[in-house]
Amino acid sequence: MKYTIGIELGVKNIVAGILDKNGKLIRRDTVPTNKDREFQEIIKDVCTLIKKIAEDEDIEIKNIKYIGVGCPGVTDNKSGIVIKNYSLNFTNAHIRNEIQKHINLPVFVENDANCVAIAEYLLGAAYGTESSLIIKVGVGIGGGIIIDGSIYNGFNFGGTEFGHMVIEYNGRQCSCGRKGCWEQYVSGSSLINQTKQLAADNPDSILGKMVMNNVAQITELTVFEAAKAGDEMAKKLCSEFIEYFAEGLTNIVNILMPEVVIIAGPISKLGNTIVNPLVELLKDRIYSKELNLPEFKMAEMGNAGIVVGAAMLGSFKDEKLDDLV
Amino acid sequence: MKYTIGIELGVKNIVAGILDKNGKLIRRDTVPTNKDREFQEIIKDVCTLIKKIAEDEDIEIKNIKYIGVGCPGVTDNKSGIVIKNYSLNFTNAHIRNEIQKHINLPVFVENDANCVAIAEYLLGAAYGTESSLIIKVGVGIGGGIIIDGSIYNGFNFGGTEFGHMVIEYNGRQCSCGRKGCWEQYVSGSSLINQTKQLAADNPDSILGKMVMNNVAQITELTVFEAAKAGDEMAKKLCSEFIEYFAEGLTNIVNILMPEVVIIAGPISKLGNTIVNPLVELLKDRIYSKELNLPEFKMAEMGNAGIVVGAAMLGSFKDEKLDDLV
Repeated sequence: MKYTIGIELGVKNIVAGILDKNGKLIRRDTVPTNKDREFQEIIKDVCTLIKKIAEDEDIEIKNIKYIGVGCPGVTDNKSGIVIKNYSLNFTNAHIRNEIQKHINLPVFVENDANCVAIAEYLLGAAYGTESSLIIKVGVGIGGGIIIDGSIYNGFNFGGTEFGHMVIEYNGRQCSCGRKGCWEQYVSGSSLINQTKQLAADNPDSILGKMVMNNVAQITELTVFEAAKAGDEMAKKLCSEFIEYFAEGLTNIVNILMPEVVIIAGPISKLGNTIVNPLVELLKDRIYSKELNLPEFKMAEMGNAGIVVGAAMLGSFKDEKLDDLV
Repeated sequence: MKYTIGIELGVKNIVAGILDKNGKLIRRDTVPTNKDREFQEIIKDVCTLIKKIAEDEDIEIKNIKYIGVGCPGVTDNKSGIVIKNYSLNFTNAHIRNEIQKHINLPVFVENDANCVAIAEYLLGAAYGTESSLIIKVGVGIGGGIIIDGSIYNGFNFGGTEFGHMVIEYNGRQCSCGRKGCWEQYVSGSSLINQTKQLAADNPDSILGKMVMNNVAQITELTVFEAAKAGDEMAKKLCSEFIEYFAEGLTNIVNILMPEVVIIAGPISKLGNTIVNPLVELLKDRIYSKELNLPEFKMAEMGNAGIVVGAAMLGSFKDEKLDDLV
């Protein structure tokens, strides 16, 4: 019983990893999600991938302790169900039951941002802290809260939707139906879209020349690179992004004041380029100015955060393994 | 050791109460705070008031188990210190030490909104729930979070500042320095100020006639009474208030999703007049629309919430009494 399996059920790809008893990711493999299929078909591929990586490592299924699955959306970790997930279009998807039709092992299911929070808490940037909060800037904004070593999900698993906090009354239209949600200003997708527009409108700018009208190559980092190279309009867009980031972050810190705030997702590669100006703005804006700010850190687990956190779901709270398989 | 004392250290008045072992408030008395004095002078009056109510009830000090103090501001409940309180102008005020100069009893100190949260949790509207959240609409907006039967304060006691969540980017100027904080739209003071303005601008309206230019009698409830009597402009102001209330509340519910949300402060007298439209708006706005909403309730402890919660601080977590006196 030395190994555990972690699954990232992503919108583009399914990622499976094997963790050894020391928490080391000894193998990782991936297949496309092809998300427009029935959920049973997707889970079948998850199970085939699990069997493949176990076989590749010469590990028998009986030597695997459990499978953990990290999935976007509202997740009932007690029943192993994804209640709702807009990006994969799951509604009340019984992930645990469906996996156990193919593989006879305990299965844990958790929201993907919570998996990252767990991985960072057990092995990464939040190691040794009592309360931590993860802000995962991706397609939207995902979040995870750890209080006294436990994931806080809300009474019906519907909490930590940090991205759906209105910061601008009657502001930009959000997919959730409200106007002015934080993730309309600070998500990776909104940043990429704004960068594309800026490059298209200004083909002769540093940014425009950098991408040479090939806007498909634009990532969350592109506009920061252009700003560093001296593009004034790119600098303005970066400042705006950080300004809105700080506004939502100050709200969250005023409410929750965790010991550590971890920023995850592609922009975490920016390191101090983003942390330093954020901290300066927060110092000025936080309600209790005489108190120490939380520590702001970049996620340390990188792309592996979801898989590693998922593979530790059963070890995170020991009682879970008995109660919830 | 049958009795405990609870103190509300308010901006206008000091209130002291005696709780018997059944949690019943058997006596309450009050003296003016005269807040512009040295904090030592204020605490001296607190102690005189404690001695007086004990004497009035023929209770010897040695038969009192402990004193609990509820105070506005950022409060370090471990050390018994008010770190910062703008309304009473306390900075690092050692409440416990100062009281113990006059009365030799264990002393607990907690933020006043947290005291209300504790009282509602132990005896009132949140009784029997796992997680609850209190929104106290007064001069500003105070808050308290209870998770798994413990007060959540943040790592440096700087959390639960719900009022200082920007909901309108670049909106109304707040005393904290930011613009657009929720309490600029939803506090009792902002509602009273807007009602006064409306009455002054429209002396012949139902509201104007109701207050007969005596704007000093206007409370948080006045505009709701005028709306009920058919005043169209009052109705508009009430709708705006509820609209902004719902906007901030939806943010908080999306982030924390507690089992119960308790609304405290003078507007809690409005009952369903305010709860029903709030719930309708939240149903429509909450991110996870397929989930059950938290239950919304009005505080049940009324004016006594702070005193009763303070008088139970040492019983709330048993270990506290040993650790922290």
